[in-house]
Amino acid sequence: MAAATPASGGPVTRDVLDDLAAASRILADQGVFDAAGHMTMRHPGHAERFLMSRSLAPALIQPDDIMEFTLDGVACEDRGRNGFIERFLHAEIYRARPDVMAIAHSHSAAVIPFGLVKTPMRAMYHNAAFIAAGVPVFDIRDKFGVTDIVVSSPEKGAALAEVLADKPVALLRAHGVVVVGPSVRAAVFRAVFTEVNARVQLQATALGGEIAALDAEEGRLADAVNLATDTRSWELWKQRVTR
Amino acid sequence: MAAATPASGGPVTRDVLDDLAAASRILADQGVFDAAGHMTMRHPGHAERFLMSRSLAPALIQPDDIMEFTLDGVACEDRGRNGFIERFLHAEIYRARPDVMAIAHSHSAAVIPFGLVKTPMRAMYHNAAFIAAGVPVFDIRDKFGVTDIVVSSPEKGAALAEVLADKPVALLRAHGVVVVGPSVRAAVFRAVFTEVNARVQLQATALGGEIAALDAEEGRLADAVNLATDTRSWELWKQRVTR
Amino acid sequence: MAAATPASGGPVTRDVLDDLAAASRILADQGVFDAAGHMTMRHPGHAERFLMSRSLAPALIQPDDIMEFTLDGVACEDRGRNGFIERFLHAEIYRARPDVMAIAHSHSAAVIPFGLVKTPMRAMYHNAAFIAAGVPVFDIRDKFGVTDIVVSSPEKGAALAEVLADKPVALLRAHGVVVVGPSVRAAVFRAVFTEVNARVQLQATALGGEIAALDAEEGRLADAVNLATDTRSWELWKQRVTR
Amino acid sequence: MAAATPASGGPVTRDVLDDLAAASRILADQGVFDAAGHMTMRHPGHAERFLMSRSLAPALIQPDDIMEFTLDGVACEDRGRNGFIERFLHAEIYRARPDVMAIAHSHSAAVIPFGLVKTPMRAMYHNAAFIAAGVPVFDIRDKFGVTDIVVSSPEKGAALAEVLADKPVALLRAHGVVVVGPSVRAAVFRAVFTEVNARVQLQATALGGEIAALDAEEGRLADAVNLATDTRSWELWKQRVTR
Repeated sequence: MAAATPASGGPVTRDVLDDLAAASRILADQGVFDAAGHMTMRHPGHAERFLMSRSLAPALIQPDDIMEFTLDGVACEDRGRNGFIERFLHAEIYRARPDVMAIAHSHSAAVIPFGLVKTPMRAMYHNAAFIAAGVPVFDIRDKFGVTDIVVSSPEKGAALAEVLADKPVALLRAHGVVVVGPSVRAAVFRAVFTEVNARVQLQATALGGEIAALDAEEGRLADAVNLATDTRSWELWKQRVTR
Repeated sequence: MAAATPASGGPVTRDVLDDLAAASRILADQGVFDAAGHMTMRHPGHAERFLMSRSLAPALIQPDDIMEFTLDGVACEDRGRNGFIERFLHAEIYRARPDVMAIAHSHSAAVIPFGLVKTPMRAMYHNAAFIAAGVPVFDIRDKFGVTDIVVSSPEKGAALAEVLADKPVALLRAHGVVVVGPSVRAAVFRAVFTEVNARVQLQATALGGEIAALDAEEGRLADAVNLATDTRSWELWKQRVTR
Repeated sequence: MAAATPASGGPVTRDVLDDLAAASRILADQGVFDAAGHMTMRHPGHAERFLMSRSLAPALIQPDDIMEFTLDGVACEDRGRNGFIERFLHAEIYRARPDVMAIAHSHSAAVIPFGLVKTPMRAMYHNAAFIAAGVPVFDIRDKFGVTDIVVSSPEKGAALAEVLADKPVALLRAHGVVVVGPSVRAAVFRAVFTEVNARVQLQATALGGEIAALDAEEGRLADAVNLATDTRSWELWKQRVTR
Repeated sequence: MAAATPASGGPVTRDVLDDLAAASRILADQGVFDAAGHMTMRHPGHAERFLMSRSLAPALIQPDDIMEFTLDGVACEDRGRNGFIERFLHAEIYRARPDVMAIAHSHSAAVIPFGLVKTPMRAMYHNAAFIAAGVPVFDIRDKFGVTDIVVSSPEKGAALAEVLADKPVALLRAHGVVVVGPSVRAAVFRAVFTEVNARVQLQATALGGEIAALDAEEGRLADAVNLATDTRSWELWKQRVTR
């Protein structure tokens, strides 16, 4: 029924949609997204709405694939398009974290092990400085017992958001990772370097002995530099996925 | 002699042949198949026939390369084409497992170690949920002593099928892996994520300590989700190998 | 003010600029440079000047992007272009090391672990012979305490140059690596094989036991061969990044 | 002086030169050859001559780059082209091993560790069956003390050939690997799977415990199958490097 369709947060410029679609293609191109994975952003004009592609492989996403949802995960206009079931994962983080403007959720291979073992993920170098804040692990079993692992309801999304707390990254046991940031560019940068950092930490661990990772304060300082210079990466990566 | 040629299960639509040929090219493109490896499907109209390419590198397979065989490994019409000697591996699984509609056999690098050591393969994440059912190892020496490793006879194929039992995946010591599924898309999806899962488990093992893998029931539930959504991966992968 | 602009070391031939720009693109193409990383050379006609791209992803650098700086990190002519903040890293090495004609600074993934643990980097084979001289580690905390990790001042550059001493390579803890050489080609060759050597040493370490690395004298002899034959690599790599 | 030029073994068909040049490009394309590495074959009409490219990156080699040498490493006609200094490595193996018709020498990254540690290389699966014969390690220090590592003289080549003995593969400490075979196709196949096998063994070792590698007799049987079917790989690989 048309009456049940929630109001849109208003029109969004083509540039914004272009960048959000490019962000999905970038994360596929950089080996972070497989055929699933999703990248979203908060509506620039309405804090209670967010933008997310219809259910589609990220490498294929174009601006017209992007839908608008409420924080209850309801589409403002679906035009026959199906949303990802895991839109609740994004919705509940936007609800819990007013500072978050963009979210990437992936299943990139190198991060999975850190969701399965006791070794905490640490910041191996400046590009992954945001990890120095600590990376919590969400185990869906803790609250929901045996499940299909999918973050498929507001309750599951909220439980994940609670574990994420004020961090930029959380691991999902036997599932993947969620990365948040103050902009689409920041979230893309962090998603890429979460994966690279995982590979580096696996290798540093294999060498044995103490690892002189970035400490929390070094991480905070270095992350500020990254946020101020992420355009250089963005432009390079975007060029690769734009004809 | 024409009299010895077994009857065909009947014509198969071009779409079916297109998909089966694409499946081989996909598994080559995804790094699962080397110049060997083969992907087959049960004949959609005749449970005692299956479809398999002539002996050719999987990256090169087109619909016209696909032959039809009986469960005894006899070609219904060879038109001068040579079959893979390992067609018996497929034939005997189709004979033993009425639920299996498609089979992939590969030698992908990351799975080989799990066929050589005591560490069992476990399901590291939802994409590899089917592995939570357990992955048996077939050692051809157990029944046949010293061989050339090739599953080159009905007897060897049957011995492998017996080890596979009701599982979706079995490892072949010093040889490779066989992956089965209820459809070509499912078998392709599982073949890809068997390889990825092996890489992830190698890394999780390197980190040390307990690994909180999916348990059998989580695996069963998550696999159902994968089977219901494998079109998203299929379409992405197929697009990459189709001009 | 024009009066404050330092004098240029003089015009540089197009071939020199072409090669320096290609060197950046080569190191991106070879997986050594991410969207940051920088490649510089001493001015061929003035020992107190060096040439370095404006702040830009290395994969995109063309001859017109190259600027000239004094050893104090001041641009001789900026034409509205912004320099990398880490130009001081290069400047201070050129000041301290008259033999150095070219420098590459990267954050390539395999070298990072060796800046974080006690295991020294050693020369695994002839291509990495220059590593047999020993690879010191620069920890910016030692002199500067908690920082944002960036080598952003003459003082930090000089501290790094002091740790580098007379070696061809130094690691920067939680940051990356600096590689120097007697020519652009030599520095590119060494940057590539520092990364490859790191991967090889990680694997040799995983096998366990003693590693029969090159000793210092073998390294010195083999490095001379590399320097005499680096054109073969250069031409192959340059062809890949030149239309 | 023209008088000193040794006699040619006679003209070689264009197909033979095409295949030998393609073999170099294949090994570059498959990640086995870096900018060095060389692939040679015995002259099909004269057992005391062999064919080898001039000094050039393997990815760039075309039929016209191929030169003919005596087993003393003297060019039968150089037409101004420079040979690789390591032609003695090939020459002395052809002298010592009448059964060898083709040789590949590479520095591929995964094999290097096995030349540096005590762990012997073993055959992880049928594609690497030839390794089950055992892989000796040549350490140039044993006979020649401190050197530049290059196999740059008949004496060094002969010492390597002595260590190789009757095997298909030998490792060169801190240098690389030499792989021989009864044909160019066989040597290419073996060079590729020596590298893949090294990666697999590194991973199997990381899992820990006993490794159920192919034994010598399984290896002998499986290698015969590989030699009989190597055309399938060859055609796939050649197509990738031939316009």
